[in-house]
Amino acid sequence: MTTPHGGVPAEQERREVALTDRVLGSFDGCQDPRLAEVMRSLVRHLHGFLREVRLTEEEWAAGIAFLTAAGRITDDRRQEFILLSDVLGASMQTITINNAASGDATEATVFGPFFVEGSPRVPIGGDITFGASGEPCRVEGTVTDTAGRPVPGARIEVWEADEDGRYDVQYDDGRIAARAHLFTDDRGHYAFWGITPTPYPIPHDGPVGALLAATGRSPMRASHLHFMVTAPGRRRLVTHIFVRGDELLDSDSVFGVKESLVKDFERQPPGTPAPDGRAIDGAWSRVRFDIVLAAEEA
Amino acid sequence: MTTPHGGVPAEQERREVALTDRVLGSFDGCQDPRLAEVMRSLVRHLHGFLREVRLTEEEWAAGIAFLTAAGRITDDRRQEFILLSDVLGASMQTITINNAASGDATEATVFGPFFVEGSPRVPIGGDITFGASGEPCRVEGTVTDTAGRPVPGARIEVWEADEDGRYDVQYDDGRIAARAHLFTDDRGHYAFWGITPTPYPIPHDGPVGALLAATGRSPMRASHLHFMVTAPGRRRLVTHIFVRGDELLDSDSVFGVKESLVKDFERQPPGTPAPDGRAIDGAWSRVRFDIVLAAEEA
Repeated sequence: MTTPHGGVPAEQERREVALTDRVLGSFDGCQDPRLAEVMRSLVRHLHGFLREVRLTEEEWAAGIAFLTAAGRITDDRRQEFILLSDVLGASMQTITINNAASGDATEATVFGPFFVEGSPRVPIGGDITFGASGEPCRVEGTVTDTAGRPVPGARIEVWEADEDGRYDVQYDDGRIAARAHLFTDDRGHYAFWGITPTPYPIPHDGPVGALLAATGRSPMRASHLHFMVTAPGRRRLVTHIFVRGDELLDSDSVFGVKESLVKDFERQPPGTPAPDGRAIDGAWSRVRFDIVLAAEEA
Repeated sequence: MTTPHGGVPAEQERREVALTDRVLGSFDGCQDPRLAEVMRSLVRHLHGFLREVRLTEEEWAAGIAFLTAAGRITDDRRQEFILLSDVLGASMQTITINNAASGDATEATVFGPFFVEGSPRVPIGGDITFGASGEPCRVEGTVTDTAGRPVPGARIEVWEADEDGRYDVQYDDGRIAARAHLFTDDRGHYAFWGITPTPYPIPHDGPVGALLAATGRSPMRASHLHFMVTAPGRRRLVTHIFVRGDELLDSDSVFGVKESLVKDFERQPPGTPAPDGRAIDGAWSRVRFDIVLAAEEA
């Protein structure tokens, strides 16, 4: 017998290919052409994976046990399947596919599980922390379109973890903190006071955490600040900014970092006067983030 | 911009490829070479799938919801992730990979969730039904090696559904029925009385059933009788035999059918004398299944 692929004999190869073809054919009666397309591609890649690695029956059983454990830990507050998608880069790839490069439009990144509808509104220059702990950070910039024209009245949602690496929703006391929204002025300008971002781990006490440990990967996310920016006629932008110099930039556990989103957070020594005259005890930081929105159908 | 792949602009293509490469690189610190190999292949095929179908964010969310629902319905008695693997042909492909073609050795097929350890032993020619309902079926044959030599003392486990399409373990009364084991004689011969197999559906009241319905597929399994055959020095064989003429042979919901496993179940009209003189009310059937075991390391 010849061995056309990696030592698999021809008759064995024939049987494996015939099986995949049979599964693909099972979708011939599907009335939804998009669903059939998705399922056929899924089957081709799934079988391609099994055949490529020559998955053993023990490994198959370990995969089933992993999914079962992920199902068991998932509830209204914990979503292990999203974590799994995140650490395999599937969430980020889906976002990349659905936010096509469009001129110099700001790049998108992962949405994450910590956005909450109905955040408080703050004025330009306002404070979004509402008591959350951390070093003050002055954030400012403009929102423009890809032709460089200012976008007035753009809605900017911002949210972030406190200096302990926790979002308000991860506390049990119902607090709303380190999240808010504001609108750009007539020149497309915005500014607010937040917290200098610090790193934190994704939840890693479940099967996804065990997978990261087994593969020598860290659960840590690079320090970041979330933005969601919307304006009429413009594509919604969901993104973060990251901190230049953060040692986790190259090992973000969910692959959210893009070079264009890494910004200079300039440390200001204690006593440095704030641009708006705010009284600050100790050090603070400032960062500029100019946002470019793609056209809606780009 | 050029569009090298299916209309995806070059800069977009670059971003997607770079992301996949970054995820692959995250396994560089993995100390278990086999785990790293499996994870990298999984990531390559997962990202290949996402990019090929240009998965939308809504479709991604539907996928997460599907896995979440599968996790919720899974418990000690119900395993939706195995059903999912079954209906995508992943179980059968894993079995095919791990039971390489070896001369004229009998082909393997899916194990299924209904095998139970500790079945009763019956003598050659005995009855495995233990009261399970259905048309009597006389099964006989030989067990040989790939050189045609008889294998005496081979252990044959058999199990099947009753005429209502249910296995004993699917009843709540603790019954043990339509399952047993026996051993081949000095000439490698075996025979037993069971039930003529009838078709039944896999459990289809969960997300896997909904997927089958949405894609126009049936949950029905082709009629079959399970075998597991073991003998010293021989590769364990897990297989079924199927009924020639069964209209479900081409649409088995878990892709277990192989042409070499389709057998002639010869219908015997009422009054036809049984080979062992057994008294039978009504029709019965008979089938021959000669089993060939591969060498252990084949």
